[in-house]
Amino acid sequence: MNFSSDTSAPAHPLIMEAVAAANRGMAASYGADAWCEAARAAIAAVFETDVEVWLTASGTAANALALSVICPPTGAVLCHEQAHVERDERGAPEFFTGGAKLQLLSGAHGKIDPAALAGRLASDRPGSVHQVPAAALSLSNLTESGAAYSPAEMRVLTDAAKAGGLLVHLDGARFANAVAGTGASPAELTWKSGVDVLSFGATKNGALGVEAIILFGEARQRIGELRERAKRGGHMPPKMRYLGAQLTAYLADGLWLDLAAHANATAAKLAEVLVSEGAAQLAAPVDGNEIFAVLPAETLRRLQQAGALFAPWEGGVHRFVASWATRAEDVDALRACLGARRD
Amino acid sequence: MNFSSDTSAPAHPLIMEAVAAANRGMAASYGADAWCEAARAAIAAVFETDVEVWLTASGTAANALALSVICPPTGAVLCHEQAHVERDERGAPEFFTGGAKLQLLSGAHGKIDPAALAGRLASDRPGSVHQVPAAALSLSNLTESGAAYSPAEMRVLTDAAKAGGLLVHLDGARFANAVAGTGASPAELTWKSGVDVLSFGATKNGALGVEAIILFGEARQRIGELRERAKRGGHMPPKMRYLGAQLTAYLADGLWLDLAAHANATAAKLAEVLVSEGAAQLAAPVDGNEIFAVLPAETLRRLQQAGALFAPWEGGVHRFVASWATRAEDVDALRACLGARRD
Amino acid sequence: MNFSSDTSAPAHPLIMEAVAAANRGMAASYGADAWCEAARAAIAAVFETDVEVWLTASGTAANALALSVICPPTGAVLCHEQAHVERDERGAPEFFTGGAKLQLLSGAHGKIDPAALAGRLASDRPGSVHQVPAAALSLSNLTESGAAYSPAEMRVLTDAAKAGGLLVHLDGARFANAVAGTGASPAELTWKSGVDVLSFGATKNGALGVEAIILFGEARQRIGELRERAKRGGHMPPKMRYLGAQLTAYLADGLWLDLAAHANATAAKLAEVLVSEGAAQLAAPVDGNEIFAVLPAETLRRLQQAGALFAPWEGGVHRFVASWATRAEDVDALRACLGARRD
Amino acid sequence: MNFSSDTSAPAHPLIMEAVAAANRGMAASYGADAWCEAARAAIAAVFETDVEVWLTASGTAANALALSVICPPTGAVLCHEQAHVERDERGAPEFFTGGAKLQLLSGAHGKIDPAALAGRLASDRPGSVHQVPAAALSLSNLTESGAAYSPAEMRVLTDAAKAGGLLVHLDGARFANAVAGTGASPAELTWKSGVDVLSFGATKNGALGVEAIILFGEARQRIGELRERAKRGGHMPPKMRYLGAQLTAYLADGLWLDLAAHANATAAKLAEVLVSEGAAQLAAPVDGNEIFAVLPAETLRRLQQAGALFAPWEGGVHRFVASWATRAEDVDALRACLGARRD
Repeated sequence: MNFSSDTSAPAHPLIMEAVAAANRGMAASYGADAWCEAARAAIAAVFETDVEVWLTASGTAANALALSVICPPTGAVLCHEQAHVERDERGAPEFFTGGAKLQLLSGAHGKIDPAALAGRLASDRPGSVHQVPAAALSLSNLTESGAAYSPAEMRVLTDAAKAGGLLVHLDGARFANAVAGTGASPAELTWKSGVDVLSFGATKNGALGVEAIILFGEARQRIGELRERAKRGGHMPPKMRYLGAQLTAYLADGLWLDLAAHANATAAKLAEVLVSEGAAQLAAPVDGNEIFAVLPAETLRRLQQAGALFAPWEGGVHRFVASWATRAEDVDALRACLGARRD
Repeated sequence: MNFSSDTSAPAHPLIMEAVAAANRGMAASYGADAWCEAARAAIAAVFETDVEVWLTASGTAANALALSVICPPTGAVLCHEQAHVERDERGAPEFFTGGAKLQLLSGAHGKIDPAALAGRLASDRPGSVHQVPAAALSLSNLTESGAAYSPAEMRVLTDAAKAGGLLVHLDGARFANAVAGTGASPAELTWKSGVDVLSFGATKNGALGVEAIILFGEARQRIGELRERAKRGGHMPPKMRYLGAQLTAYLADGLWLDLAAHANATAAKLAEVLVSEGAAQLAAPVDGNEIFAVLPAETLRRLQQAGALFAPWEGGVHRFVASWATRAEDVDALRACLGARRD
Repeated sequence: MNFSSDTSAPAHPLIMEAVAAANRGMAASYGADAWCEAARAAIAAVFETDVEVWLTASGTAANALALSVICPPTGAVLCHEQAHVERDERGAPEFFTGGAKLQLLSGAHGKIDPAALAGRLASDRPGSVHQVPAAALSLSNLTESGAAYSPAEMRVLTDAAKAGGLLVHLDGARFANAVAGTGASPAELTWKSGVDVLSFGATKNGALGVEAIILFGEARQRIGELRERAKRGGHMPPKMRYLGAQLTAYLADGLWLDLAAHANATAAKLAEVLVSEGAAQLAAPVDGNEIFAVLPAETLRRLQQAGALFAPWEGGVHRFVASWATRAEDVDALRACLGARRD
Repeated sequence: MNFSSDTSAPAHPLIMEAVAAANRGMAASYGADAWCEAARAAIAAVFETDVEVWLTASGTAANALALSVICPPTGAVLCHEQAHVERDERGAPEFFTGGAKLQLLSGAHGKIDPAALAGRLASDRPGSVHQVPAAALSLSNLTESGAAYSPAEMRVLTDAAKAGGLLVHLDGARFANAVAGTGASPAELTWKSGVDVLSFGATKNGALGVEAIILFGEARQRIGELRERAKRGGHMPPKMRYLGAQLTAYLADGLWLDLAAHANATAAKLAEVLVSEGAAQLAAPVDGNEIFAVLPAETLRRLQQAGALFAPWEGGVHRFVASWATRAEDVDALRACLGARRD
């Protein structure tokens, strides 16, 4: 019963096989290989548009590099107060942007409240050099509370951002889960909803470690600067074929959505068990593969006694994560552990 | 006949197998897994001393992170004018250090001339805030001309550096080739010769992509800052088990030295072919797996016609690299290509 | 009736005379002159302790440089959400620290709520590399709402900060007004209350432009790094004698406190006029030389008609500032303007 | 006999008077005052073209800010190996640009050798992300050896730079001396010779402390970014009227050129004394107000015995500087001191 994080799961066998299959012969370095090319083509197909792409082995790098090409050192990135870029990346956005400011907005379940965004945008005084003006909006889908933005919800925020001249970044560390959860298409959840740059995660959903920075529309013109900053940040390793191979396999035949659908369905079952047994109360909607729940002391005791792994969150909440690798047995074990309480 | 770079080679099967073998079950994230632990232990054994270690997937990142913990933003790193950190990393050292200066020294075959180092050190005026004082010395072994420093040669430079209060970094992207070439031990070529921080490369010598930043002696105390900077730089991916597994397999049973010995021996044969056929003149000693040679027009024509891949260098010099994967057939093909000229 | 800002006022004649008097003969450059030496001695006397000092011509520079020697790039500065360092310095703290994060705390009248500070400090997980840990606390006295911290109020915050290992910075752009307002001594409002580094402003209180960064206690050891960073930031102009002369004159014979007392008393009278005429409601206590008030439409109309200058603040509040140069006639003019409303 | 530096001289009385005259009444802050406006107008008139201007109190700040708007963090500034930006600014260019690289070129008397520039430009490989490409050329006039570029000499370099897509910065810390020395007009020595951004110094030539960053031609569009970076760097002090007043007085009625002409003429006389007495050998042409000379031991002894102040330079060379304030008596004293040697 390890529900600690989807980052603790191994890679899916098909992705590992693709890495092994890429391990033959000489190949061009630094992203000029056939596997990276195939990955770019697969991404364009999945997102139904022309894109520019850079692959990294780290989600923090993907986010920080993405932000660094849409926000100058003298500007601000607006994000949710719980955003991963704010809370869990040790200041990587500040480092890669050269000292831009992250300004925090509130809202339920990790979604930015449109009124909070409007208020912040209204406070910018054009031409003032004293204040740090908003230059970018960063959303997360899934949010840090496990909720999913619908395209319509995103549009409200991105329309406001674009009216203010901002560019829009989407942290899609669990983008597959958002797609699987909302039923919206990758295009609908990104460029059709105003996203300029996407951090497209695969690591949490079955890869060894690969994330794609995807530039849409006019933002594609920033690919040159992105590659320069990637190199400068140590995110242009020589043998990129292994990154390209992972992402290509991830997208082939809908594997990525199958894995996400499995994780989401498993999370839904876990949530049902937790709630139906009266053992916990959900603190946020379970739109993807994460459950945030308040656990009574007795539940906590039982889970710990059974050696279940899950993460303490803030405010008495705990997080349970289902991954592509979480099995039906894990759900059963949880049910058995909690069900015993009524006997 | 692909002699373009050792970065174009695939990974060695044993290392790929280790990655596949690591792909089972749940594992702790961010370097707290058993494979990273094993890698650290293997490194300590190979270098015969206590060490602190951080693994990265990129040599540029390894170098820049290493320098960032031994040189403040207001200091200078002294390095050879051909050093990779100066020429080929798009300003990564400046980025990671927060704007430290790289100051360039000359010397034959990529080795810093001790007199040049002494002159530079003598020019620092203690207490002056106007000039950027030297804070670190960065050496490369192999050098960027393919030569190898002996421990004695290193000691002359590191003694001077330490007398001036500098810390010493070694870019060991091809450290295995230097060990195999000099016959000196890993310890003799690092901490016993005054090295505080080593970028220990494996990617060019058979890994998919892993480099270890190794802190020796008192520099070990900087591991906390190193980990913070790694995280901040996007160099703390969640599933680090795949990095740990690579490095562990790389060091197991002397694989790394066998691979380097093969590459060095192959390079020696290649050099012999180039020279004995009168087809080229060596521009630097072939101490490892790289050959820098001046090619007459006829030689160049024949090689290009035969589709041989190698890299134009500066000053009319070309570079040929042998890797762990370069085969005897490649040498034979080169001989056939060039030998035909005399018929 | 110009109550727009104390930065709009000219310099006091005695300070200008001192600058003119310093304009004779050759003098050592870069702060090694007799006037800077005298300024340092005067500061030590006023603060009743050994200090290290660097003079700048800008308050933003003083704050940012001060923070850069007490907060690493990977750390956070805790400050009030209205703090000048957060709102009005275009990201200077992020620039000078190399990308440290400013984390915002709430509290009435620009004073940090001790509970908010405690909550933030409690959230740091020792050893975590993912989160940005608090490294420094920055207070402002006067606060950005014109209120003054008493030594006891400061102590509650600085004790908590120091228990958490933080260093403490005080933005004293209007420190003179805080001293004059509270009646506490300079020492009591700084190092005796846990302040490690003070930005000691003189510009708003009668100088042409000079602020002193003052290091107390063990923080004095950071003077070397401070000077290096000042030079690197362009804050070591050659003819520093003119800065030294200003600050020496500012502190001579209690001029600085006389000027602040005048400004504070004038502000008190202005506030009395505004309130007693029923024309406005105070939004914050008037502890120094600033008044924050809610103005009814009629009041606003009259003031604007009379050509009075004052600044719109947020939330319908307006700010009036009295300086050393605000005259009794200005108060009378305001009274006349508003008093007429009842006729 | 103080020939140590023109930075040790006081301000010219007319400039001090202008500062005192500006000290009346309330004035807008942050550069929006009438004095700064007058300075901008005076600069446009002197340079015979439309310009954008920002004033700073420090030459290091002027240079670093100027470079920060013409060179990205991922680019290189080409400059002479003796350039002040390289040698004497503690890495300020690296700090303000966010880590750009200074790449050094050689040439006699501080002038860049056109062949060295051509060689460097030829080495850039378009599209390569590994190397740091040249983005800007920085010249100094006077050079760091006291020589003056003619417009024709500048043009050779700036034409090559512009053909390579570079923008051109001129460090004019002693620009007045270059104008006075060459007889060329300010326009001819700047925008007519390909300069995009000028650091126009006044401090060394009679101001208390003011330098203007002047943007010419299309570079004028960068004024917004320049102001943002100035604010962020602490170079937007509130009471900028005192900077504006200095510069306005400096340019009024040709004062700046009169002062430079005096300094240059005095330097010429000093050089004549040094040489004619056989006491020294010039190491560089005396085109402005600086003399670089090799001093025999006897000369050195006499000068030191007489308490003369001058600066040791590198390679056994010493520097003597004449300023606007150096008097005929100082020259006479030098002559007396050295002349006695023949008796």
